Amino acid sequence: MSLSDLFEPDGIAIVGASATPGKIGNDAMSNVEVYDGEIYPVNPSSSGTVYGYEFVDSVAETDADLALLCVPRRLQPQVLEECGEAGVSTAVIFAGGFTEMGGEGRELQDEIARIADKYNITVLGPNTAGYAIPHADLYGSFVPRIREVGIGNVGIVAQSAGVAITLSFHMTQEGYGVSSMFGLGNRVNTEFADVIPVLDEDPRTEAIVLHVEGTADVDRLHKICEEVDTPIVAYKVGERADPDFVRAHTAAPSHVDATYEEAFDQPGLVTVSSTTELLDAGRVLADAPTPEGANVGVVTAQAGPGIIVNDYLEDAGAVFPDLTAETRERVDDLLEGITYTENPVDTGRPMPEFGQVVDAVARDENVDIVLVYEIYEDSLGYPVEELEALSEEVDKPIIFTVAGPHEALREEREQMEALGVPTLETPERGAQAVAALIESISGEE
Amino acid sequence: MSLSDLFEPDGIAIVGASATPGKIGNDAMSNVEVYDGEIYPVNPSSSGTVYGYEFVDSVAETDADLALLCVPRRLQPQVLEECGEAGVSTAVIFAGGFTEMGGEGRELQDEIARIADKYNITVLGPNTAGYAIPHADLYGSFVPRIREVGIGNVGIVAQSAGVAITLSFHMTQEGYGVSSMFGLGNRVNTEFADVIPVLDEDPRTEAIVLHVEGTADVDRLHKICEEVDTPIVAYKVGERADPDFVRAHTAAPSHVDATYEEAFDQPGLVTVSSTTELLDAGRVLADAPTPEGANVGVVTAQAGPGIIVNDYLEDAGAVFPDLTAETRERVDDLLEGITYTENPVDTGRPMPEFGQVVDAVARDENVDIVLVYEIYEDSLGYPVEELEALSEEVDKPIIFTVAGPHEALREEREQMEALGVPTLETPERGAQAVAALIESISGEE
Repeated sequence: MSLSDLFEPDGIAIVGASATPGKIGNDAMSNVEVYDGEIYPVNPSSSGTVYGYEFVDSVAETDADLALLCVPRRLQPQVLEECGEAGVSTAVIFAGGFTEMGGEGRELQDEIARIADKYNITVLGPNTAGYAIPHADLYGSFVPRIREVGIGNVGIVAQSAGVAITLSFHMTQEGYGVSSMFGLGNRVNTEFADVIPVLDEDPRTEAIVLHVEGTADVDRLHKICEEVDTPIVAYKVGERADPDFVRAHTAAPSHVDATYEEAFDQPGLVTVSSTTELLDAGRVLADAPTPEGANVGVVTAQAGPGIIVNDYLEDAGAVFPDLTAETRERVDDLLEGITYTENPVDTGRPMPEFGQVVDAVARDENVDIVLVYEIYEDSLGYPVEELEALSEEVDKPIIFTVAGPHEALREEREQMEALGVPTLETPERGAQAVAALIESISGEE
Repeated sequence: MSLSDLFEPDGIAIVGASATPGKIGNDAMSNVEVYDGEIYPVNPSSSGTVYGYEFVDSVAETDADLALLCVPRRLQPQVLEECGEAGVSTAVIFAGGFTEMGGEGRELQDEIARIADKYNITVLGPNTAGYAIPHADLYGSFVPRIREVGIGNVGIVAQSAGVAITLSFHMTQEGYGVSSMFGLGNRVNTEFADVIPVLDEDPRTEAIVLHVEGTADVDRLHKICEEVDTPIVAYKVGERADPDFVRAHTAAPSHVDATYEEAFDQPGLVTVSSTTELLDAGRVLADAPTPEGANVGVVTAQAGPGIIVNDYLEDAGAVFPDLTAETRERVDDLLEGITYTENPVDTGRPMPEFGQVVDAVARDENVDIVLVYEIYEDSLGYPVEELEALSEEVDKPIIFTVAGPHEALREEREQMEALGVPTLETPERGAQAVAALIESISGEE
């Protein structure tokens, strides 16, 4: 069993395709039709075309290797059997009402598992909104507007497709995007531990973010996280929520937090406690160099936000090293009467020399990570030139926390991003991103 | 001493006004010139006009009641003396380098305090970027683009003007705004306890948010917070940060957290631990009705985000009451096979009946606060009609957590806001807003 046909299918059958807007089989068609491969709408009760593709009566009439099953749950076993006979290797089952419902649902899912096993079919789901690989124009999902999700270098693997979608749109809104996103749902035979290694091999994925409600497979998840080279960020949820409600979602087994804490306590793996932190940590681990230590140099143009940053970083185990005599001298020379030339360095206001102050701190041998805070002023702009030189000459993460009117700072923000300098809004998000970098190397020699 | 001339000055003198772009006296002029009152640029070394206003040599030649002092710190005592002699009642001192620097700076601030006392001048600052009252077109600040800050019903009182500005732009970016915003800086004679009662009386301010680094006046702050009717949200920072760095900012005295915890532990007052929570709590307390209790009814169109919400609320002391038999029956009737009809109610997907499910839960007598989560779908939209009826007939806070592409949902989001239904992004922000509502009534009978 392999996931390769999920990534590069030659032909896609949409079983239960529909010409009626609003139907799941129509939404799925509207997303999949942009893919550069054979597209087969399958529906014995329909004729003519949908999105320019001719309906066929059965998956047996297609050369599909991937099938998106848009039929009601009770029809799934029969349709999956037909897929198996037709040589389909991979299926996405959108319908819910399986193990998470208990009773008949559980029996139905067991039957699906047996059929998948018999024909060696990789099944994503059931009970999922599917997946998306934007750079490949591949949208195995019925979610409207999923094609608006941006292309990026963070891979999302979420137990809940609803969370995967929320995260993907949020990432897009921030001007970023995803390398791919997966909603695992009930995980009949496609688990976290199956998807993670594929993303680890994917050259477009530079960080993997996980949303975990619970999996029977926690040991294998632990092992896989240990083996991969790509940085991983994990958000484990559902420990405090009503266990009945959690189980009713994707049939997550109950585990105690400690099980996951142990599984996720390893170098290269960061744990977080909100969706925003999950995305920010993913972005920063994907874009910034790996730091050599937890020594943070803070440069702020406004002391107040600098204090908030400092508060957060103290909690995260950051070290604020003394700057070298050379750096202090350079900073003192840059502007007389600068507010605070220890670490944090506080320039009191944005100023033309701000970029040089950042440069001095970034080149300091005592500093492993640089965190900058600056409210944007049009007449000064952001120190893009200095950051360009730094990105070429200094292999340290530099995180730039921005504030001010979005329109005014958008262009320079994008320039900084292009240089590998992640930009974040609000003091706490900047600080939490640095905390993620520190956690990513904790436990390493 | 009164703050009234800070709110409705008849004439404003900009002492140190300049025709040179980039100078603080030019930036301040560019902001103040839109105000509908007398504007006097004061500078003995300049002649001609700036922004259409004629330079005068001295504040004595003006009828100003408010002066913005844009001169270097060593000139401040002399200029303030001139203001006093000219009958100016209120001054904003932007320059830094006073008590927070120690030594000569402390002496200078003491001198300013003496002069302010002698002439009964209300001084905002020193060491501040000033203040803004957008609805009055009144911008007593040198911050470029501060005039882009939106008009809203939340008043910001921040010890750090940098934080006040960050918060104001953030609020604007979210489609909200402020009733007024103040950076207190070194608080020579204008403290939290002076500004809060004025905002409490201000009919445009429906919630007050505080950013506190430290004040010698913690007892008076406590008392004032107790006395006012307007809901207050407080973010106390700087307890973990390097105390030297904190003191070097606005000369905040060191107190232990417990002092503030005690001061802020009262009904109507909410404490938070990030700038985003501060603004979200302010928005929700300003816009939503006060809840009668901590019983939360959650309605979600996607279980995964619902579980995250549930996790956060369990931590916040929320109660998830059983729905009445009547509500359960109504919800069951609305759609057969709905995913989870307990509380949280999970519809599994957005659906045409979603608004009616929200309506059923909101009208349930066991429910005090409603939290909704729904990923936007164009074909269904958000349930604006049902929310309109609820806002007229049910006096409970309803918080709507939105997700999806911003452009698609913007219009309906604004419609919900207009109905008094605050909208927030990400599951954790929705849940934290509800937590703020619960904290605001804790301790009440």
